[in-house]
Amino acid sequence: MPSFDFWFSIGSTYSFLTVHRIDAESMAAGIDVRWRPFSVRALMQEMNNIPFAGKPAKEQYMWRDLQRRAERLGIALDVPVAYPLSHFDRANRIAIIASQEGWCESYVKAAYRYWMLEGMPAGDEPNLRACFEDLDQSYERVVELADTAEIDAAYRDATAAARALGIFGSPSFVVNGTELFWGDDRLEDAIGYWQDLEYGG
Amino acid sequence: MPSFDFWFSIGSTYSFLTVHRIDAESMAAGIDVRWRPFSVRALMQEMNNIPFAGKPAKEQYMWRDLQRRAERLGIALDVPVAYPLSHFDRANRIAIIASQEGWCESYVKAAYRYWMLEGMPAGDEPNLRACFEDLDQSYERVVELADTAEIDAAYRDATAAARALGIFGSPSFVVNGTELFWGDDRLEDAIGYWQDLEYGG
Repeated sequence: MPSFDFWFSIGSTYSFLTVHRIDAESMAAGIDVRWRPFSVRALMQEMNNIPFAGKPAKEQYMWRDLQRRAERLGIALDVPVAYPLSHFDRANRIAIIASQEGWCESYVKAAYRYWMLEGMPAGDEPNLRACFEDLDQSYERVVELADTAEIDAAYRDATAAARALGIFGSPSFVVNGTELFWGDDRLEDAIGYWQDLEYGG
Repeated sequence: MPSFDFWFSIGSTYSFLTVHRIDAESMAAGIDVRWRPFSVRALMQEMNNIPFAGKPAKEQYMWRDLQRRAERLGIALDVPVAYPLSHFDRANRIAIIASQEGWCESYVKAAYRYWMLEGMPAGDEPNLRACFEDLDQSYERVVELADTAEIDAAYRDATAAARALGIFGSPSFVVNGTELFWGDDRLEDAIGYWQDLEYGG
């Protein structure tokens, strides 16, 4: 069965749509999705890819488009929210921990829900405390672990793996280890590509 | 009936998909589309929006994604092609002329076809000669007219109108004079928005 990797950074606005809907879409298609946190910010900085800073027309459009897409998909949100995240790396290092410990998906969903619906920026203490209460995790333990060299190395390794795949944005989908799709609006294309591989196109 | 404007620059790769399919999609939906050439390059330069230069991973992805989208939509192309266009402004000033004289759509379709299928960059002499032969236009007359102050002013006016609408990319769709959609992959969203206005959503 071809693999299907969902590469994301908490902090990407459109990734919220994918986080919300990828379970239902992949389950309907019979796909096992691997959730892969990485630092899209590091890769974008490397290539001087600046989507919104200094581009007010583009940022204003993004919020409106995100809202329309969410409505179309039946996803609730309350935007604009605080953006970009102040504690982007902490939010994503915790996703790395959660991935190692088996609670990645529920953490990422909760982090986005509190950010996009309750106005609590992901990675900030109120968001993390709310997430960890839901997930029965210790705030102190996880936040301390997130600052260790071990987790930093794992975060950098994940980002290096994304770079090697040609990833430059979040969300990205990689089918069978090689075929890259970028953007929530390419989820259907990625699923279709997987199905062609699995069942013959 | 709400208006539906298709804003584009010849030279945008994804706009080829829209140029190819917007007639069929809009006709099926009962929409009269106005084709509106402008200079996306001028607006992108103003906001330092650099999609691909110095971003090889992103450019490589764009060609692959364009190819996959075209396959999915049943559109033939042969990419990568020469990009960016050397004579971007000439290609689009001629679209302004064509728009004034009533042959805009057939010119734009031909320009893209010779660029994306025959490898003749839009705006270059071979592409223009091929287009004008198809369209029964005089190469000398049109190319000379494209360099006049009058056409330059009309081109700048069109670009100013796009700027005022918040446009920052090509293709863009503006429904009812205000609601902006960006990207060929938003054509369905724009048509859906128009239909909600026209028939009640």
